[in-house]
Amino acid sequence: MNDREILTNYVYKMVASLMQNGVEDVVISPGSRSTPLAYAFASTKNLKVYRQVDERSAAFFALGIAKAKAKPVVLLCTSGTAAANYYPAIVEAKYARIPLIVITADRPHELREVGAPQAINQMNLYGERVKWSAEFPIPDDSPQTLPHIERHIARGVNIATTAPFGPVHFNVPFREPLLIDFKEELPMPSFQNSYVGEVTPSEKAKETLEEIIRQTQKGFIVVGELALGTDLHYIWSFIRTLKWPVLVESLSNLRTNVPEDCEPYLITTYDALLKSGPFKQLVAADTVIRFGAQPVSKFLTIFLTETEPTHYVVIDEDPMFRDSAAVSTHFIHASIGKWLNELKLSGNHINEEYVTQWQKGETIAKKNVDSYIAYESDEGAMVRMFLEKLPDQSDLFVSSSMPIRDIDTFLLPTTKDIQVFANRGANGIDGVMSTAIGFSQARPNREMYLFIGDLAFLHDLSALIATRYQPCNINVIVFNNDGGGIFSYLSQSTVKEYYEDLFGTPTALQFEEVAKMYDMDYLSIHSLDELSPFFEQPKEKPLRLVEIFTDRKENVAAHRKLWQRIHEELER
Amino acid sequence: MNDREILTNYVYKMVASLMQNGVEDVVISPGSRSTPLAYAFASTKNLKVYRQVDERSAAFFALGIAKAKAKPVVLLCTSGTAAANYYPAIVEAKYARIPLIVITADRPHELREVGAPQAINQMNLYGERVKWSAEFPIPDDSPQTLPHIERHIARGVNIATTAPFGPVHFNVPFREPLLIDFKEELPMPSFQNSYVGEVTPSEKAKETLEEIIRQTQKGFIVVGELALGTDLHYIWSFIRTLKWPVLVESLSNLRTNVPEDCEPYLITTYDALLKSGPFKQLVAADTVIRFGAQPVSKFLTIFLTETEPTHYVVIDEDPMFRDSAAVSTHFIHASIGKWLNELKLSGNHINEEYVTQWQKGETIAKKNVDSYIAYESDEGAMVRMFLEKLPDQSDLFVSSSMPIRDIDTFLLPTTKDIQVFANRGANGIDGVMSTAIGFSQARPNREMYLFIGDLAFLHDLSALIATRYQPCNINVIVFNNDGGGIFSYLSQSTVKEYYEDLFGTPTALQFEEVAKMYDMDYLSIHSLDELSPFFEQPKEKPLRLVEIFTDRKENVAAHRKLWQRIHEELER
Repeated sequence: MNDREILTNYVYKMVASLMQNGVEDVVISPGSRSTPLAYAFASTKNLKVYRQVDERSAAFFALGIAKAKAKPVVLLCTSGTAAANYYPAIVEAKYARIPLIVITADRPHELREVGAPQAINQMNLYGERVKWSAEFPIPDDSPQTLPHIERHIARGVNIATTAPFGPVHFNVPFREPLLIDFKEELPMPSFQNSYVGEVTPSEKAKETLEEIIRQTQKGFIVVGELALGTDLHYIWSFIRTLKWPVLVESLSNLRTNVPEDCEPYLITTYDALLKSGPFKQLVAADTVIRFGAQPVSKFLTIFLTETEPTHYVVIDEDPMFRDSAAVSTHFIHASIGKWLNELKLSGNHINEEYVTQWQKGETIAKKNVDSYIAYESDEGAMVRMFLEKLPDQSDLFVSSSMPIRDIDTFLLPTTKDIQVFANRGANGIDGVMSTAIGFSQARPNREMYLFIGDLAFLHDLSALIATRYQPCNINVIVFNNDGGGIFSYLSQSTVKEYYEDLFGTPTALQFEEVAKMYDMDYLSIHSLDELSPFFEQPKEKPLRLVEIFTDRKENVAAHRKLWQRIHEELER
Repeated sequence: MNDREILTNYVYKMVASLMQNGVEDVVISPGSRSTPLAYAFASTKNLKVYRQVDERSAAFFALGIAKAKAKPVVLLCTSGTAAANYYPAIVEAKYARIPLIVITADRPHELREVGAPQAINQMNLYGERVKWSAEFPIPDDSPQTLPHIERHIARGVNIATTAPFGPVHFNVPFREPLLIDFKEELPMPSFQNSYVGEVTPSEKAKETLEEIIRQTQKGFIVVGELALGTDLHYIWSFIRTLKWPVLVESLSNLRTNVPEDCEPYLITTYDALLKSGPFKQLVAADTVIRFGAQPVSKFLTIFLTETEPTHYVVIDEDPMFRDSAAVSTHFIHASIGKWLNELKLSGNHINEEYVTQWQKGETIAKKNVDSYIAYESDEGAMVRMFLEKLPDQSDLFVSSSMPIRDIDTFLLPTTKDIQVFANRGANGIDGVMSTAIGFSQARPNREMYLFIGDLAFLHDLSALIATRYQPCNINVIVFNNDGGGIFSYLSQSTVKEYYEDLFGTPTALQFEEVAKMYDMDYLSIHSLDELSPFFEQPKEKPLRLVEIFTDRKENVAAHRKLWQRIHEELER
């Protein structure tokens, strides 16, 4: 075999193995060293290839697809700093548990650490931020090579898609020349299939949970963001049987598509409620059972720390269970599955008055949230109106920092099919728009609305480059309050002298030019009145930018007023 | 002491130690966890604090300052993906040998790996891409803490500024509350000074070099990009004494400010010359002595590989000396310094005819490069005209990919004080504009011209956010050839079917809106004629964007024609 045949066989074997193991999508950033694989991906039928020049954005774009599909997505870039640009999204994928298959092309050994261009040390480039990093062999014609890489790819995808999901890294060296022969057909894999296991709880764990539930008079469930691909029916059934109050974070996606018989138990306004001292006393619990990530609400965390439930059971698919308040008493290592509905819960005797306290609180808070737009016109009111008017089958992607908090405050239970997503692995404001655009690619039948602040929008403006390479469809709703809104809620805002310089960081930028440059519909909104026609105007272009101008100070004041109203009514 | 006093003393001690060790500049990205240090930096006199929201750009901005000043520059960000965004610039700093002091704020131990927001594993976050990574203690009032951190900061800055320079990482955990008391005066450091050593060659090395030079009939010197702060006088003296041909890369900064008596020995057109087979035979050398990095010219590398000089001496301050062609025969571990001018070179008997061959070639190629604008109007011609007209005391920052190659082709020796810089550690096209803007901050008396392609410009559009936070002054010259121009020169361009999709990657974007958004002067240029008035129009605003529209195919054809002309004349 000549070198070109060897190279060709190697890269098509990689592609065939990735597909065999469930990969459907590849995001490529242009570069020279990655040429053989780029060709193999691009020339393969039934593989969706996306392109994005900025590797940081490319990685978040891939993360968005993987998040939407709950499937492994491949990233491919050339050697050098290109690969380092993947790092933020890899970190997010690690903590958000998203299966990314990161492939970095590399120079062969003779060009490493010898001053060759675009050659950096790519061994373990992502350290402990990936679940596994493998160095692939240089393509050769030894009979060991292809069977080895085929199974190594299976191992990598297995690791990425074993709970908890996460990123893996393949570093693949190529020698020049980099051209291949194009093939119509992929080689038949000799390795046929992997069967990745599920994390199910031990008998002892289930018995303990049953016993704790039996002992509980006052208890509630908390549901944060769940693992990708979680079947919500198991949770709805559990709620239906247990009839405990369920504090559902917006990212749990239990606030929407709500089954009628579960609705009475949903507590969606806990962040507002748990700011009230007297209410906290009323609802202090013996037992808390948590599924999914820790919710974003700081006041829920404070409440748990203050009241220290006798039992705080964390159910998590990762042995490194999440509990930053250090109030957990039990950890059950399990994914959500059938076992949950097979628990013996006949002994459940929840105190009905306790449940009623929560329900009363929820009713009061909901009423105030619901009528918020009647007396405010701040960012929160805009969010509230959006949520009310969002059509069925909408996806809502929400930036970290203020937007996620506003969604958590203003999204009330609904039977509408709206789904809410965010990057909450590391809570960064980076890569948000790229993630949303990638996400929407994987769900073409749903309309995507991205809620984002001006700084996060600016941080990831590169996201829009992707719209030049593949048809994209998104509504970008930018809340432009000229700077970092969230800091206004923190103690830093009391130190006036350095506040704007170090935290507010206003840019005085507006984004109409961005819309022009990227051929987006543009709408500029300064008040609630101007917002209402938005939903009547059909989108003329696939990309729409809605810039909502708000004021950071006004937002804080209005939010505080809402909480005050709720507390006053609660305490009456 | 209460917690606030402890925290205050800790962060001011850090600031005092950094300044004591030579830090003058700090680049801060907003965030909450880094608050104590951000306050301490911002409230300290005689420290220049810069701000940039996008951490990727912030890190390149800092790298630019460090590059301009040859001094350590501090980066500060909050915990989480913010820190991961520093990675590309850190990689560049490692390979370009630039002293960055990267400070990442972190959560305290009880909030690590427990599902707390914005908490990721920051231990060894940058792996082997930093020279050292240290975890700082949580502030406390034990008598060991402050003396320890004071000396650890000295160690970190020492490492960063010991040849070869490079980045170091301090991970600093803070517990809430994060507010400090502001101090007028910094604490007096107890540690007073570090004296970092120089890398000087052994006697044996110098004797060997003298002996090699004595034996040489045909020899030349190569000078690539030199270590930060190198005193060029040592090299000019060496050239003056040796009278060998000197192949000077544009980044060596030996093509400008050229002393009259050295000019006859400078070979600046070697990339064009060494594409000619017959010429290569004429100038094959016994001995090559190289200072600095490997030059960008691929044809120089090929020439060295083909002709295998008997002696190829690499002089480098890093024991990991650079030689990707693996043709080196000797390595001398040394920084450029006085020793170079103390060598006994009396036995130097270079073959004059050999020198003349190089000089003839240079004369022919120079003439053709010089007259290029008479017969072409492509990207190269624009670059050539720019270089001719650039005023004295200009800094030229050049993107990787095509711009650096064009500068290397079209920058001929001049006595003008023009200095040329680029990110050639890892040769990325990322962060280029940020580096240039940071660089220009440190040299306010010189006008900065950035040469950059459309993809690199888009990749680092965030660079311009920095212009909203501090006065900046730059001419951004974008060569918009709608995609990746460099790939047209590679074999990938022969595979038409996938070329534009995977390598050309055109976006059809134009940048007038960017100029509007960021309040920049804007000039759109389609031909050489339109370019000439540029130098007569004074800049009206501190920021100027010049968008030069060119055609990728035309550029390749025109460049090839130039080389052909040179070769034809050479061979006559």
